[in-house]
Formats: sequence, C-alpha cells, structure tokens
Amino acid sequence: MANLLEKINQPNDVKAIPEEKLPRLAAEIRKEILRTVSRNGGHLASNLGAVELTIALHRFLTFPEDKLIWDVGHQCYTHKILTGRREQFPTLRKMDGLSGFPKRAESECDAFDTGHSSTSLSVAAGMAKARDIRGEDNRVVAVIGDGSLSGGMAYEALNNIGRFHTNVIIVLNDNEMSISKNVGGVANYLGHLRMSQGYLNLKDSVERKLSKTNIGGALAKGIRKTKDSIRQIMIPGDFFEELGLTYFGPVDGHNISEITMALQAAAKIRGGVLIHVLTRKGRGYSLAEKEPSKFHGVEPFLLATGEVRDKNTAPTYTSVFGETCMRLAEKNPELVCITAAMTGGTGLSEFAKNYPNRFFDVGIAEEHAVTFAAGMAASGMRPVVCIYSTFLQRAYDQILHDVCLPKLPVILAFDRAGLVAGDGETHQGLFDIGFLTQMPGMTVLAPSDGDELRAMMAYALTCGGPVAIRYPKGSQDCAANEPKSPIITGRCDEIVRGETVAISYLGPFGTIISDACDALAADGIHPTVADARFAAPFDREWIRGLAGTHDVLVTVEEGTSAGGYGEAVAAWCEQEGLPIRVAVVAAPNAFPAHAPRKNLLRQCGLDALSVAETIRRTVANTERSE
Amino acid sequence: MANLLEKINQPNDVKAIPEEKLPRLAAEIRKEILRTVSRNGGHLASNLGAVELTIALHRFLTFPEDKLIWDVGHQCYTHKILTGRREQFPTLRKMDGLSGFPKRAESECDAFDTGHSSTSLSVAAGMAKARDIRGEDNRVVAVIGDGSLSGGMAYEALNNIGRFHTNVIIVLNDNEMSISKNVGGVANYLGHLRMSQGYLNLKDSVERKLSKTNIGGALAKGIRKTKDSIRQIMIPGDFFEELGLTYFGPVDGHNISEITMALQAAAKIRGGVLIHVLTRKGRGYSLAEKEPSKFHGVEPFLLATGEVRDKNTAPTYTSVFGETCMRLAEKNPELVCITAAMTGGTGLSEFAKNYPNRFFDVGIAEEHAVTFAAGMAASGMRPVVCIYSTFLQRAYDQILHDVCLPKLPVILAFDRAGLVAGDGETHQGLFDIGFLTQMPGMTVLAPSDGDELRAMMAYALTCGGPVAIRYPKGSQDCAANEPKSPIITGRCDEIVRGETVAISYLGPFGTIISDACDALAADGIHPTVADARFAAPFDREWIRGLAGTHDVLVTVEEGTSAGGYGEAVAAWCEQEGLPIRVAVVAAPNAFPAHAPRKNLLRQCGLDALSVAETIRRTVANTERSE
Repeated sequence: MANLLEKINQPNDVKAIPEEKLPRLAAEIRKEILRTVSRNGGHLASNLGAVELTIALHRFLTFPEDKLIWDVGHQCYTHKILTGRREQFPTLRKMDGLSGFPKRAESECDAFDTGHSSTSLSVAAGMAKARDIRGEDNRVVAVIGDGSLSGGMAYEALNNIGRFHTNVIIVLNDNEMSISKNVGGVANYLGHLRMSQGYLNLKDSVERKLSKTNIGGALAKGIRKTKDSIRQIMIPGDFFEELGLTYFGPVDGHNISEITMALQAAAKIRGGVLIHVLTRKGRGYSLAEKEPSKFHGVEPFLLATGEVRDKNTAPTYTSVFGETCMRLAEKNPELVCITAAMTGGTGLSEFAKNYPNRFFDVGIAEEHAVTFAAGMAASGMRPVVCIYSTFLQRAYDQILHDVCLPKLPVILAFDRAGLVAGDGETHQGLFDIGFLTQMPGMTVLAPSDGDELRAMMAYALTCGGPVAIRYPKGSQDCAANEPKSPIITGRCDEIVRGETVAISYLGPFGTIISDACDALAADGIHPTVADARFAAPFDREWIRGLAGTHDVLVTVEEGTSAGGYGEAVAAWCEQEGLPIRVAVVAAPNAFPAHAPRKNLLRQCGLDALSVAETIRRTVANTERSE
Repeated sequence: MANLLEKINQPNDVKAIPEEKLPRLAAEIRKEILRTVSRNGGHLASNLGAVELTIALHRFLTFPEDKLIWDVGHQCYTHKILTGRREQFPTLRKMDGLSGFPKRAESECDAFDTGHSSTSLSVAAGMAKARDIRGEDNRVVAVIGDGSLSGGMAYEALNNIGRFHTNVIIVLNDNEMSISKNVGGVANYLGHLRMSQGYLNLKDSVERKLSKTNIGGALAKGIRKTKDSIRQIMIPGDFFEELGLTYFGPVDGHNISEITMALQAAAKIRGGVLIHVLTRKGRGYSLAEKEPSKFHGVEPFLLATGEVRDKNTAPTYTSVFGETCMRLAEKNPELVCITAAMTGGTGLSEFAKNYPNRFFDVGIAEEHAVTFAAGMAASGMRPVVCIYSTFLQRAYDQILHDVCLPKLPVILAFDRAGLVAGDGETHQGLFDIGFLTQMPGMTVLAPSDGDELRAMMAYALTCGGPVAIRYPKGSQDCAANEPKSPIITGRCDEIVRGETVAISYLGPFGTIISDACDALAADGIHPTVADARFAAPFDREWIRGLAGTHDVLVTVEEGTSAGGYGEAVAAWCEQEGLPIRVAVVAAPNAFPAHAPRKNLLRQCGLDALSVAETIRRTVANTERSE
C-alpha cells in the first residue's frame, strides 16, 4: 500500500489524489501530526480536528493565487504539510524549523501571519476588497473557530463584510471550544444550530437530492429560486443572515465530500457566505477527543498514555499565582478573578471550582475582560484579571481609559510575560513593560521568584489604584535562602552590596545575575545587585544613592528595550545629570522567532555570559571616557 | 408660568414633577442645552435627541444608588442638569467648569468615566455582578447608541451578559447615526426592526391593552404567559434574543410615558433586557435635525443660522491631509482610505465622494479598520488609515501584530494627536508617540506644518513598511518662508545653527520655539533649532554632531513624557555617554482636563515662556555641574 503523503510535495498536489483515497490521506496526515507533536510539542487537538476540512479546502482552492487565512493559525499543520512543507514538518517549532503558525516568510501559500485571535475576517475582507479593486478574481477564504467568534473584532468584520458585496467565504470551524469550553450567547446560539432539525435534513437531503454533477451550481440555483428549499439546506442562521451573509450548514467537518459540496455552492453565491462546519477537537486520537483542553497546546508527550515526557513538577509562576488567588480570596470577599478563555493556562481552575460566583471566564474577549473588571472595581470589588501578556495587548485602550483614567484598583496579572519559546513571534510577551509604564498611575511589578509573586499579590491588594504584575511561563527560579524584605512602593530590594558597578534586574534573573557576577569576579568586578521589583515607579532614591560610589548601572529586563524599564532609568539619569553611566540590557526591539528559551535568552543578550560581557564592555568604555 | 427647571436642584427632584408637565420640562432643558452649547460649543445633536429618554430614566432610577452608564458619554447633558449641576451648566467645557462627559469626580451620580465608544455594556455587566456578589439590589442601566454597537467590545459584552443571569437593562438609543450615518449589518438589521409592523402594534396596543396601574407587572406577566402576546409587544429582536437577552421595542424615544412603561416592564424581567428606543438626533432644533452630523460636535455658533461664531478659515492639518490623499490617489491607483465613523472629522468627505470604491468607513471599529488595512496591504494596496489618536489606542494590538510584525506598508494617520481642548481627559492624543515608537519597524513622523504633512504623506508612500504620521486638530502653524529640505529617513531638519544649546522639536512647534528663542536672546542664549520630523528612527547622527559643540539638547513634543521621543533621545545619549545634557519638554504623564489649548500648553510646560524657562534652568544646572 503506497504512502499517499509521499505524493504530496508541492502545493495543489492534493488535487491529484482520487477522492476515494482521501480518508486514507487524512489518516496518514493525522499520524504525521501525532508523531511530530508528541515529539516536539505544539497544538494538537485543533489540528487533529481540522484535517478533513483542510484537505477539502486544498482541493477547492489553488495556491498561492487563492488566499486562505487561518484565524489564530494554530490549526495550520495540515495546511503546511500540503504546501510543500511535509519533509520539514518534523522540524515544527524547533529552532530554525517550521513555525507552528502561518508565516508569509515561510511560504507564499501562507496568506497572512496570524497568532492572535479573531483577525482572519478583517484580513479576508481586506484581501477581497483589494482583489475587487485590482480587478482580479482569486478566492478568499477565512477559517475561524467558534471560540474566536467571541472576540469583538470578528464581529466588527462580520458587520462590515455583510455590506461589502464582495466574495468572501467564511468557514466557521465549530468544535464547541475555544481553548477551554466555549462560552457566551453566541456559543449557545451555535448550539441551537447544531441541534436543529436542519442538520439531519442536510445530511440526507443534500446528498440525495443534488446530483453529483454540478452540485454547486444546482445548489446555488435552488437557493436563489425558492425560499423553502433554502430553508431545507440552509438552516436559519438568522444571526449571520441578519448581518448580510448567506449561511450554509451545519456541515459534517469530517466528511470531505460534504465540505466540498458546501464550498462549491458557496463559490456560486455573490457576497459573503458563511459555512458552518462541525468538527471534533482531537479527532482520531481518543485521549485528545476525551480531553481536548488538555491536548490543546502540549509539551512533548508519550503517544500511548498521553503523558508529558519530561514532566517538570516544580511549581510554576502560574501555579503560584493560582494558589495565591485562592488564599487571598479566603480573606477578601471582594476578590474576584477574570480570565479570557484561559482558565487552565492561567492557573485558575481550582479557583473557578472553589469560587464559582467570583470567577469569570469571559471567552476570547480581552477588551471586555478589562472593562468588566473596571466596572466591578468601581462597585467596590477587587478584580484580578489574568491573561497572557501577548493577548492583553488587545486591551491597551481599556487598561488606559477604563482603569488608569478613573484610577480603579484593578490588578492585572500578565502571565507568559517575556520570552516565549515554542510559539514564537506572535506570542512574545515583550511589550508590556513599555506600554504599562507609559500609563499614568499604573504600578508595574515583576517578581524575581514565586515568593515575591505571592508578596506582590498581597501588596497589590493594599494599593488604591491599578497594579500590573508580569511573570513568565515556566517554573519559578527560586533564589533560595535569600531573606525577603517587604514590598514597599517604588523600592527595589538590594541583595548584594558591591562596588563600582550596580545591577538592577527586573523579573526572574536571580540565577542569571548570580552566574554573571561569578564570571565577573575573575575580572575583579564585584557588582552591587538589586532586584528592581518596580518598573514603575522605579527606585530613584536607590539610584541617586549609587551616584558617587558607582560608575555604572546596568539594568536587566525581559522585554524590548524601546520604552522599557531600562530606558526609563537611563532617560531619568540623563536628565538628572547623575554621574553614573547606564547600560540597558533588554531584548532588541523585534519579534524573536520560536526557539528554546535558553537560545532566546542568548540571542537577546539576556543570559549570564552576555550580561557579564555587557558589563565588562560598559566598564571599559566608562573608564576610557573618564 | 413657573420655570420647571428651577425646581430641579438635587438628584431625583425630577420625580416630583407631575407627568403632564414633563414635555414642558423637556422643552426647558432643550432651551438650556441650546443656549449653553451655542455659546461654549459641545455635543449638540446627541444631547437634543436624548432629553426625553434621560427624563424617563431619571424618574425610573434613584440616584446615586442606581447606576446609569452612558456609552461614550457625550449625550449626558440632561443627566448633568438633572443631578444638581443645573447652575454650573453654563460652565460646560470651560476651564474648571463641567466636563462634557460623565466624571465620577464631578458627581456621585456619574457612575463611570466614559469617552470612548462601546464600553458601557462591559461596565454595566461588572457593576451588576458586583451588586449580585454583594447581595445588593440596585438597578444597573446602560445607554448605548446604535453607532457604538458597531464596536466589537460591545458585542463581547452582549455575548457575556446573555449568560450571566444578572439584571441589567440596556437601552439601545437608536438614532441611525454614529457620528456620520451608521453603517454595517447591524445597522441594516436595526433598520428592519424599525420598519417592522410591530412598532405600530406597540404604539397602539401597549398603550391600549395594558392598564395604567401596575403596567410593568401586567406586561411582564403577559410576556411570560403567551408567546403570541410577546410577539405583539416584543418585535422579533432575534439577534439580541439569540444572545440570551430579552428584547423590547421599538419604543418612541421622545414619548416619556412609553419609555417609562418599557423600563418598568424590563425591571420585572430576570436577566439582561434590551429596550430598543428610537430617537432623532438634533430633536427640537430644526437645523440639527436636518444635518445631525454637522451638529454632532460643534464650535460656538449662532442659534438663528447655525453658523459658527468665529469661523477660522485657515486650512487645518485635517484639510491638508484630506486634500493630499486626493492628490496622491490620482497617481497611485493602489491608494485607499479607511476611517472609523469619522469621514468628515478626518477630512475625507471629498475623497469619499471622488473615490467611492477606494474609500471605506468601517463604522466605530478601529481594530477592524487596521487589520482590514493590513489585509489590503498584503494584497498590494497602499492603505491610509485615518483615525483620531485617542481612538487608535483601541487598535494597539492590531498595529503591532497585524501591521508591524508582517512589516506591511500601512500608513496610519493619527488626527487630533497631542492636546485636545474641549473634550478633556478621555480625548487627549498624548500616548501615540510612546506606543508607536515602541513598535518594531514603525516609522513615526510628526509634521511641523501643512507643507511638511504633504511631504511626509508622499514620503510615506515610498516606504516599504508601516508609517505613522501624527498631527493635531486645528489650523496649521505655517513657519512661513522657511525653505523645506526633503524628507529623508531618520533625518531632522536643522533650521537655525546656534551655539551651546540645541532644541529639537517634534510637531507644530515652529512659532513657539521661535518665540522662545527670541526670549532667550536677551540672556545671550542663541540655540541651534531643528524640526525633528522623525520620532522613530530619530536622528542620531545629528545629535552625535552636537556633542562637543553644544552642552544641552532640549527636546520638545506634544505627548506624555513617559516613553516618548524625548526620553528615547535621553536614554540613547545616556547609554552612548555623549557629553551633552538632555532636557525633555513634554506633557506630564497624566490626563489633562478640558481647557483652552493655550492654557493646556502652559499647564504642560509647552508654551514659549515655559520652554524658554526650562532651557534657562537646564543651562544653569549644566554650568553648575561642570
């Protein structure tokens, strides 16, 4: 039995596979995805759910002329395998290997770089209008999950596509999940559609009634002719139809010919068409089908048991955060927790169980999450909003306008802040220090270990205004045996008193700085070391105290340099005319690609060797210029 | 005939006015609004449209216990008049007078500070849940316009309110407008509801059928009992009902008893209720009824003719921008313009008329606007997105993730950048320099006059990546007779070569700096002066050239200091160890309240006298420390 996948070396090769062999192709692709993801980690359940859908799309579209936009993009593995990247697929998420998300730089078949939710419909609308203006006739298809539909900008796009009279096909990949179980009115509505009589009608009537030849044409004709027959094949998707879209579905998302039929029919319709496709997350791997949330984004795991290969049992910042919320909630009846489709990922599963009335998963809706918290804070509650740093960028204006302007005591927990390994460019949490420290009245904290995170959470509850706490993914880097001083507004924690050189690090750099100091000792450099704790307001008094006794102040942070903690310190020292030279160690102002954390730190000059080298160089330059 | 308004001195006083006198009260309020707005300027049409609605809400609610949240907030004038601020009303939008928007600091009857669109439903959801958790029973009402409903976060909130089982009343104030004519699928849908048979039914049947005693109870009972009777009084608002809300309406928004009846009925229903109220923008002032867009936000005008009192005929940055788009579009068939419900305000009315196929008003949907532009740019178009600076904050993540990351040549025009006079805190365009210069690969420009804006637009079209151009409201401050050098990436324009002190200003500071230099001449200070042009990348070469010949570099910008142009320059000089002292002149890191532009510049230390004083002080300090 020949391997079908071996015949797929170029985009569009899948069109040559005979229809009856497509289920076998799907099985081969699933095997490939399971093999690679179980070794490299990655997004499993969503990719297993989208195999047939992707095959159908690839038979319908011609690449790269036609444009296929994957919302979020974590479900693009089959698409990559089918567009000349099969042989590279084992390098998925490895350094210099394939990205886990669509990348225009990687293939001209990747129409747009995605990674954040709910952008695909806006992109598709733009590409469709560009095509119309240029007088071209390529197809534009966006694939969006039901979870992404809870993001407001998807609705802004739907609201516009309906009136544009431009040909766009929207495939709603409905698996009843975002990352956690999907929530909200739209989810309920999709549930109604799913259960509606019409689904059965579609299954038997469409297949029976429409002849196999010119299916699309016949279907489209039928739709235009009689309103009744529309109702048989097009379930009342009033929500979408009211927005000016034609609704088709629901369609079995694991039946390639059914999806193909719907796509061909959609191609005959003018304007925006929405095809509602039902898929199952984790399809074909029973462990993932049973627990799709657990197998959404995974570390390398054993196929037989689903167990993570190198299970790290050390407590993570995320788990410390979750525990601390639980503990603080006991004493503070006003404390509530809010997240956006990331209950497990933010460590709040236990909190959600224990305090169901004080826990809110608002779905993929970061803007709402923040302003909802602001409303609660204005009514006397103490909301803690926990969202990944990269996704909280979505709520920039809400943080500024609805939290900082009215000075409300909302606590913002930025999980996955700093460098993010496997997901790459779109998921880096490198911008939060910059945008938060720019906001009037915002206190910005970064713990150096789990203990400090606990202390900072308790401290934040004593503050009368907005507080942001940022911490990375991964296990906490405990600087053991260091006595902890209490958190005092705008004060750093001086750990070692040295001479000439001072280091102020923001976040979990204890071990790295300690190693850097060991390396510097050989050169006779014995720095003063402080844990900055506060990016805003930063400790001006401590810095002023250094001037006169120290020549160099080196700041270290896991964020981009532009507008970050270090630049704020440097700008202040410059304006004050302090006799100390500031060197900023921070990530370059860029989007680092996926790579192991160790390599990323090195690339960004944030590992012990690089920090030591920067210090040596700065000391040398300062001596020269004196 | 006694003046009814004089009887309203405290919150809730309106409840004592006999029902039959309410139309007279409404007329008195309109007169008051017209008098004050024609003198002070402000938001006219929306306030004239909401008089009866506000009276009905104030008879239904008890202040300050009940919470009333005005979306955007520019329609709150009647609310202010009815909550003890009648006598202060003539100070509206004047320095130290009443704000044109709800402010918690101004009255405990203002439940939340608003100013940006589409936040009210999230705030209301938060306040309702806080109430439930605290076991309180106050009412929570949000008033949102149909225009604000096109903003995605309103939908995120609707999607959550439906499943919360918490009592929230949403009043949809439908006037078929956002600022310009409202657009999109939802607008069409509301149009259907408006025209539906049901409206007539409501008008005669509700009034006839339901007895005046215990109207709400009867109505609510009726609704629960028979589905048919619901359909008579509740027109199929399927869109909202699918989201889990109970829909009432449409209701005549100028009929106080009809609105009251609906509110009382809504109060008997559990969960979220949406009351669809139809109002007319500009109601009661025929000129505004005819041209509601023109009378949305107005300068002081003559009541008799509607003409602006002190018409400034000098071309504004906005008009130069609009013209330039027109001119560039002739030669560049790929140029398209996109705005978000601000066609007139951004100077694009002519463009929209001349290039209807290349102009897109996406409604209040800034996030979609930017990513839609990114989609077009990825397909070879040259999109120009023009939105007010304060509103573009909404699209922070879209600019970073969908434009900068894929390095797409989108041109972002930030109108109303810098200090904004009458609208105050919520409308300040002070944060854009900070957040834009933080974004990798973003070129950030600010013209010093209209000519430079023209040149920068042309330059932006030659760039292969994202470009932002920021400029203020108001007439351009032409630095006459200055020869203009071409725009070169990362180069400033040195205007005067002086000595010791250098000034680099970003934006329209020509006259101010020229005046400051005149003042400094008396002290023997003759600065070198440059128009910075680029906030990013800023001119490092020029600064390096100053070191050695100049002791002080003063940067001047109309933005907050934190993370802005000046701090970036200072941080760089500090790290480079350049022998020059940098002083940053910028707005403090705060939200300045409404005041005349002249006063705001003074407050922020950005007028000629303040700049001169800062320079004197820095020179003196630098001499001392040497």
